[in-house]
Amino acid sequence: MDIVEEILKHNRLALSKGITAVENEYDNAVDIMTKIYSHTGHAYVIGITGPPGAGKSTLTDKIAKEFRRRGKTVGIVAIDPTSPYSGGAILGDRIRMMDLMMDSGIFIRSMATRGSLGGLSQKAGDAVKLMDAFGMDIILVETVGVGQSEVDIVKTADTTMVVVIPGMGDDIQAIKAGILEIGDLITINKADREGADKLNIEMEMMLELNNEKNAGWRPPINRTIASKDQGADKVVDSILAHQKFLTETGKLADIRKERIKSEVTDMVNVRVNRYIDKNVVRTTEFNETIERLQRREIEPYSVVDTIVSKVLK
Amino acid sequence: MDIVEEILKHNRLALSKGITAVENEYDNAVDIMTKIYSHTGHAYVIGITGPPGAGKSTLTDKIAKEFRRRGKTVGIVAIDPTSPYSGGAILGDRIRMMDLMMDSGIFIRSMATRGSLGGLSQKAGDAVKLMDAFGMDIILVETVGVGQSEVDIVKTADTTMVVVIPGMGDDIQAIKAGILEIGDLITINKADREGADKLNIEMEMMLELNNEKNAGWRPPINRTIASKDQGADKVVDSILAHQKFLTETGKLADIRKERIKSEVTDMVNVRVNRYIDKNVVRTTEFNETIERLQRREIEPYSVVDTIVSKVLK
Repeated sequence: MDIVEEILKHNRLALSKGITAVENEYDNAVDIMTKIYSHTGHAYVIGITGPPGAGKSTLTDKIAKEFRRRGKTVGIVAIDPTSPYSGGAILGDRIRMMDLMMDSGIFIRSMATRGSLGGLSQKAGDAVKLMDAFGMDIILVETVGVGQSEVDIVKTADTTMVVVIPGMGDDIQAIKAGILEIGDLITINKADREGADKLNIEMEMMLELNNEKNAGWRPPINRTIASKDQGADKVVDSILAHQKFLTETGKLADIRKERIKSEVTDMVNVRVNRYIDKNVVRTTEFNETIERLQRREIEPYSVVDTIVSKVLK
Repeated sequence: MDIVEEILKHNRLALSKGITAVENEYDNAVDIMTKIYSHTGHAYVIGITGPPGAGKSTLTDKIAKEFRRRGKTVGIVAIDPTSPYSGGAILGDRIRMMDLMMDSGIFIRSMATRGSLGGLSQKAGDAVKLMDAFGMDIILVETVGVGQSEVDIVKTADTTMVVVIPGMGDDIQAIKAGILEIGDLITINKADREGADKLNIEMEMMLELNNEKNAGWRPPINRTIASKDQGADKVVDSILAHQKFLTETGKLADIRKERIKSEVTDMVNVRVNRYIDKNVVRTTEFNETIERLQRREIEPYSVVDTIVSKVLK
């Protein structure tokens, strides 16, 4: 079948095949993405991130259901960069979503791409574009973690939500910094746990200190208990308020321009890094250089200079 | 002062200045690293990673103290890739280490490098080399997180320890995969919490299933309560057992060769990505291309082809 044509006709199997093609870098992947591009740009993309144990998957499910109640179709891209397995390790997470999977207005895809030579955020972006062209109104991109690669993925979303939970100890310091950088919304999940009030106050204070930087939007703090289906409606209200703010101020176009810029830059970097891997790293000469470095006969900076001058025009 | 000469004379201020130079990419950084290289390769490097809230900083402190008790000097590189601030956000963490800071056999340095164009693992690696040349016997590299960038940092250590805690919920699945990939040691911290036995059994089962891949080394599982100073002695025993295993089997040389290889490759990639940033991304032409992409007049793959062919030889 013509995957692109079928995706545009809302064929779910074609969408699934398309994402598999980009995930595994099949020969037809570039062709699919080239043809699909002009059909993208309609969906509203929401990034959801936070530390392990924050209950992001359950919360994502509830947000998806709330959007469905409001008549929107929803795509979910769940990224698990820590898993070297394709699907296996995260299937458990997704079993909870069985009821969602019976809904034709929802499409869920897990992606696990550890071990590939870069390209995680590119593949996630491609999956988003395919769901966008398929006709999903809302696309939720969920990532585990607070590290740089996860931030790279969600920072290209239209609205980014950071999920925190009470009882994170000192590591909340690290997460605070991440929130200030990328969070348009803050959700305190597991809000029935001890420490939720304290966490809420800490978050408010943090936003207060950062108020000047907010430029017209102060991230709302919502409390949820996703496992009891509490609070997702307010989260969706906040997402829509942020969307309204971005649209009315013209910032949405800026964000999307930045997204395209970072996508193209990433694609270039991935291509170049792969070129270096193939033409430099996997050569006998490089192996010999490494052995000389290991014996401390030479030092790495001059080695790097030589390689760079060989590679770049 | 001649920073390299002074570092070799165990001057702490020089070590501090040297790390600041590589962290902030001062003009003299390359010169320092070029000169220092032949004096490195003596320290034993231990990577410590795990999700937020696992109590890694406290545990790292206790491990450092245990090594001191055994007569070793210890350097600590604490990396917080989520913080855009230099030092500020993580100072809180480090205040606990006040007593360690009074010990001349210990040197602690926090690095926060979010927002820089790549190079986090390179800078961490440079800090390790400077501490190595300074004469530290043991270097502990601590990172928050389970994401790809954190794994990239610790995977170049001689011994890598993954810290987990009871009560992580479904996200333990994601962490399990990370452990299988990088963990030489597993430490269950906060082992007085409910669920420690269950977690221990899960970890044992996971290792059992993975037994074939272990190639002579089965990661030991230790339980600690770092906040009560319990268990660090056993962790250090396990680290030394792993060091003995690596030395006797000759694997240590292989690991270090791989480390050098990945360091050089990273340095090349960072240099090339910066070149692209300067000569492609920050140009008027690129900005116009992005605007055409935003209007869907063109598609990104052909744009990437053009850029790549302009950049690479």
